[in-house]
Order: sequence, then C-alpha cells, then structure tokens
Amino acid sequence: MHNIFDNIPSDLEAEQFLDLIQTEQVRIERIVSTGQTSPEGFWYDQQESEFVIVLEGQATIEFEDKEVVLKRGNFLNIEAHQKHRVKYTDINNPTIWLAVFYKNTQVL
Amino acid sequence: MHNIFDNIPSDLEAEQFLDLIQTEQVRIERIVSTGQTSPEGFWYDQQESEFVIVLEGQATIEFEDKEVVLKRGNFLNIEAHQKHRVKYTDINNPTIWLAVFYKNTQVL
Repeated sequence: MHNIFDNIPSDLEAEQFLDLIQTEQVRIERIVSTGQTSPEGFWYDQQESEFVIVLEGQATIEFEDKEVVLKRGNFLNIEAHQKHRVKYTDINNPTIWLAVFYKNTQVL
Repeated sequence: MHNIFDNIPSDLEAEQFLDLIQTEQVRIERIVSTGQTSPEGFWYDQQESEFVIVLEGQATIEFEDKEVVLKRGNFLNIEAHQKHRVKYTDINNPTIWLAVFYKNTQVL
C-alpha cells in the first residue's frame, strides 16, 4: 500500500518530484521540498492549471500581486499562466505537496 | 486561505462531498465519512478513474477480489469500472479523503 508520507528524503539538493498518476488529461505529483525556493527572478508560467495542497511543512507562494502562506492542509488553485514562484519552504522539516495538474481551467 | 481540515463535521447522517475543482476533465473532491459504509450489496461502478488518498482517519475499501485498508497518507488508484465499495470507515474520528476523478486511465 502506497503512502504519501513514506520515503521522504530529509536532505535534498533539489526538490523531488514523483509522478503518481499521468494521463493526457491529468498529472498527479508528490513534491518534496527541504528549503528550496525558486531562483531569484524565476516565475512559473504553466500551460496547465494546478491544484496544490500542502500535506506537511510550510511554504510561501509568491504571485505577481500577493504572497500566500501555505501550511498543513492549505490548498490553492493556480490558473494556467498565473505566474508564481516558490518564495519559501520550511528549512527544518520537509514540505510535502500534492499537486494535480489539469488542462481545463473552469473552477467552481 | 482554504484548508482541507477546516469545517469537518463530526456527526453526519451521510457522507459529505465537497467539490473543490470541477472541469470537464477532472473533479477534485473532499469527502468526509464518520462511520458510513456502502450499503450491503452496493458496488460503485464508476465511469471515471479515481485517485483517492486518506488524509485523516481510516477506511477499508472492498474490491471484488481483495480488501484494502487505508490509513493516513495511503493512496490508491481505482480504475474506471473497477467495482468497489466502502466497507468500513472509522466511527470514532472523521475520515477525510481527497479524491481526484479523471477520465483517462493510463497510469504510470
């Protein structure tokens, strides 16, 4: 039985990305951060929308007009082409994210 | 900021389903169970595939050929038309599920 909290590396040079599901329509990914941030001046500009939830740890996502702090359980929908960067992730404990990338942006 | 662990009802007559994202391709849903199970003899036979993770609590999913116990962090992919039922959910604490329903079944 798979567990999202298993095999969490505690000391990574780079963020770890693990595909859990990948189809033409959707990609579900576990991401582990251990203090990494996006390079200064770098912005994600994704073709797909992304639903992301923090399951452990803490992070700050920077948008062009705001910053959002994500703690355990916080989730966020990032529209396609909504520029963002990871400004902060917890340096003391791994931050475990579950991300769902999908093509269509219609949101309830 | 939304939190998946907020506003968890502790005493529900029926399971609670909350759509977080809904598009033509994908539906992301929070499910809260407080002891509910599928009716005797009832089987889900879904047109979409379902990735499901238990974030709190405990449950048992019954398939035609096996039973799977899901605790915190356990995740599972249920193929479209893979018959299953919820045999057990924790009666003492809410079980919080995050489910992603999607159309394509190609899995890594």
